[in-house]
Amino acid sequence: MFKINENYQKLPGSYLFSTIAKKVSEYQEKNPDRRVIRLGIGDVTQPIAPAIIDAMHRAVDEMGNAETFRGYAPDLGYDFLRKAIADNDYRARGCEVSEDEIFVSDGAKSDSANIQEIFAESCRIAVCDPVYPVYVDSNVMAGRTGDYDAKTETWSRVIYMPTTAENHFVPEFPRETPDIIYLCLPNNPTGTTLTKSQLQEWVDYANRIGAVILYDAAYEAYISEDDVAHSIYECEGARTCAIEIRSFSKNAGFTGVRLGFTVVPKDLKCGDVSLNAMWARRHGTKFNGAPYIVQRAGEAVYTDAGKAQVKEQVAYYMKNAATIKTGLADAGYEVFGGVNAPYIWMRTPQGMTSWEFFDYLLENANVVGTPGSGFGPSGEGYFRLTAFGNYENTVEALERIKAL
Amino acid sequence: MFKINENYQKLPGSYLFSTIAKKVSEYQEKNPDRRVIRLGIGDVTQPIAPAIIDAMHRAVDEMGNAETFRGYAPDLGYDFLRKAIADNDYRARGCEVSEDEIFVSDGAKSDSANIQEIFAESCRIAVCDPVYPVYVDSNVMAGRTGDYDAKTETWSRVIYMPTTAENHFVPEFPRETPDIIYLCLPNNPTGTTLTKSQLQEWVDYANRIGAVILYDAAYEAYISEDDVAHSIYECEGARTCAIEIRSFSKNAGFTGVRLGFTVVPKDLKCGDVSLNAMWARRHGTKFNGAPYIVQRAGEAVYTDAGKAQVKEQVAYYMKNAATIKTGLADAGYEVFGGVNAPYIWMRTPQGMTSWEFFDYLLENANVVGTPGSGFGPSGEGYFRLTAFGNYENTVEALERIKAL
Repeated sequence: MFKINENYQKLPGSYLFSTIAKKVSEYQEKNPDRRVIRLGIGDVTQPIAPAIIDAMHRAVDEMGNAETFRGYAPDLGYDFLRKAIADNDYRARGCEVSEDEIFVSDGAKSDSANIQEIFAESCRIAVCDPVYPVYVDSNVMAGRTGDYDAKTETWSRVIYMPTTAENHFVPEFPRETPDIIYLCLPNNPTGTTLTKSQLQEWVDYANRIGAVILYDAAYEAYISEDDVAHSIYECEGARTCAIEIRSFSKNAGFTGVRLGFTVVPKDLKCGDVSLNAMWARRHGTKFNGAPYIVQRAGEAVYTDAGKAQVKEQVAYYMKNAATIKTGLADAGYEVFGGVNAPYIWMRTPQGMTSWEFFDYLLENANVVGTPGSGFGPSGEGYFRLTAFGNYENTVEALERIKAL
Repeated sequence: MFKINENYQKLPGSYLFSTIAKKVSEYQEKNPDRRVIRLGIGDVTQPIAPAIIDAMHRAVDEMGNAETFRGYAPDLGYDFLRKAIADNDYRARGCEVSEDEIFVSDGAKSDSANIQEIFAESCRIAVCDPVYPVYVDSNVMAGRTGDYDAKTETWSRVIYMPTTAENHFVPEFPRETPDIIYLCLPNNPTGTTLTKSQLQEWVDYANRIGAVILYDAAYEAYISEDDVAHSIYECEGARTCAIEIRSFSKNAGFTGVRLGFTVVPKDLKCGDVSLNAMWARRHGTKFNGAPYIVQRAGEAVYTDAGKAQVKEQVAYYMKNAATIKTGLADAGYEVFGGVNAPYIWMRTPQGMTSWEFFDYLLENANVVGTPGSGFGPSGEGYFRLTAFGNYENTVEALERIKAL
């Protein structure tokens, strides 16, 4: 008789966004005349830029023509895209990353969930708290997290690194020694990040203790401050301890197009086993390449026109971020993030829980955000608003909040 | 100090197609005047059909327009595609499969490699021999296969079911009891399949012993005989024991477009745990949906124009299959498959090994095929030719082989 992977049974329900959707639809039903503005989900709203649309049309035509048709893509990505990435995201910033260290994928979510597979089950992971839930959940499925304590909402073998206003959103080196350290910078949901010198300390720490940093840089395009690294490979020594995961979702609006990549440096080894070779084997066995059309779309992001157009989109969202941040501050709230990231993180007022504030905001301002507690126990007492809405709605949402 | 997943170290090198490529390029270098014809790799060559190209252009335009832009797709697939699949692939054949039992993915390779994750590490797998290598390799990575014996090229905990001319390519129920049974039907590489009543016996067997059948139906579109099931759900009782994996790669040429789906019936349970719910959780955690553009392409496969056009492509390839099959038989070879599948499987002549025949054919006919031993130990002494080339080349390749 077959048996299931029992680790799945340990996973608590994943109800954050479904609970939000349910509460909103109940509210709308009872109050059909109110126009609810959604600043909750981290999905983009601007259409794909013209240079990218053109590239996709061309690629579609190629697929319809016998002379230019493309079948299976190389498992690890087309050379044209890997070169564009290496040139623009790395060489242009002085980082040593070569084409064959770049693995093109269908997105950062897949990569950040799958990357744990190449590590031993015994490895202990450390995560910032609050953080993107996929890191912990994918390790739960792999049996790496121990037991769940429903009261504290923590796993016995996961090392949590609180990232809160109290430590200025700079996580401390944990007391217990981790083997794998997840860092999402700029961070989702707090919208905060580390300076390059703070990140360098993490690289040094990881090299010292023999840990791997899984560095999720999905929000890199939103960095506006000079002393913040765009890639972990700007730090010395990162090539021996860090894997970097990148996305086209937030810089170029590819949430529904699906493209990402992961960098595994050849200097990253366990004894004499190359993690680059392991990830190549994993990719080659369990993945069949990103679509040709989508890889051409990715290439177009790096053309002059593409760069200018996606920069405009990022600026559009960051104008929203500034609107939210200033508006909330004017209304007397304690506000974080929003400078190097499209997320604004606020402390809930008067000791309200995250969900209490969610209800309060929905009912009184008809604005939807995301309760911070959904991203980890240290997110309790915080609330996330995103800059991915349209500008007019964002302005109106803030007017309503200020009028409370 | 972090540790790696040691199971990766057990994997023998995966050299089949790279060795073929190396041998061909060496031959071409020495013999630049010879025109080599490749009937080796299972990749399609016909361009994407016009109805599908039109649908992709429309979807690309939607993505470039603020009113019609789509961000994150539903993790499990858009309703429009799940409905088209349920209607056309299942309801039209009298199979009971509902929309929420269909999980849209980026392809059958990913699904067939990832599906093992929801089972316990202790499960024993059974595979046909020879077969698509991903089934075994993905289980090696998960630590489910025991030790590798380089001499016999087998794993100690894998149950091999020889599928050869001696048993008319009908695998026997194994002596040891498996928990998970992989069946690829029509089979890659043998191009053979089972009748519906033979498949029914496997379903009954699986239900009797409490095993799950992982049914890979990637070549379903090539079935030409009436007594062959297009879906395992045509068999009674399959809903309590079978997961079906399907692809758009071979019926509609999507090898570079990337789309597939997996059916997990709600009646498939381990105790009271639903495998449908487990796969939904896996998909929702580790995957972020197939691209909108690609899902619209998939939908177009099921339109009247799409159906007619992909049917023509399948017929084109099957004309190649008939050409190969007849040509080889005329030349005195023992030939199998090619009736319900785009693969022709032949016995090597005069006791040659698969690789000896590869060299012989390359050097004397300038034709490239795939050595059967690359698909499993029982593939030794066989050779695979594929019908995915163009017709003129296929005819010429067979003329050359007949002239040997």
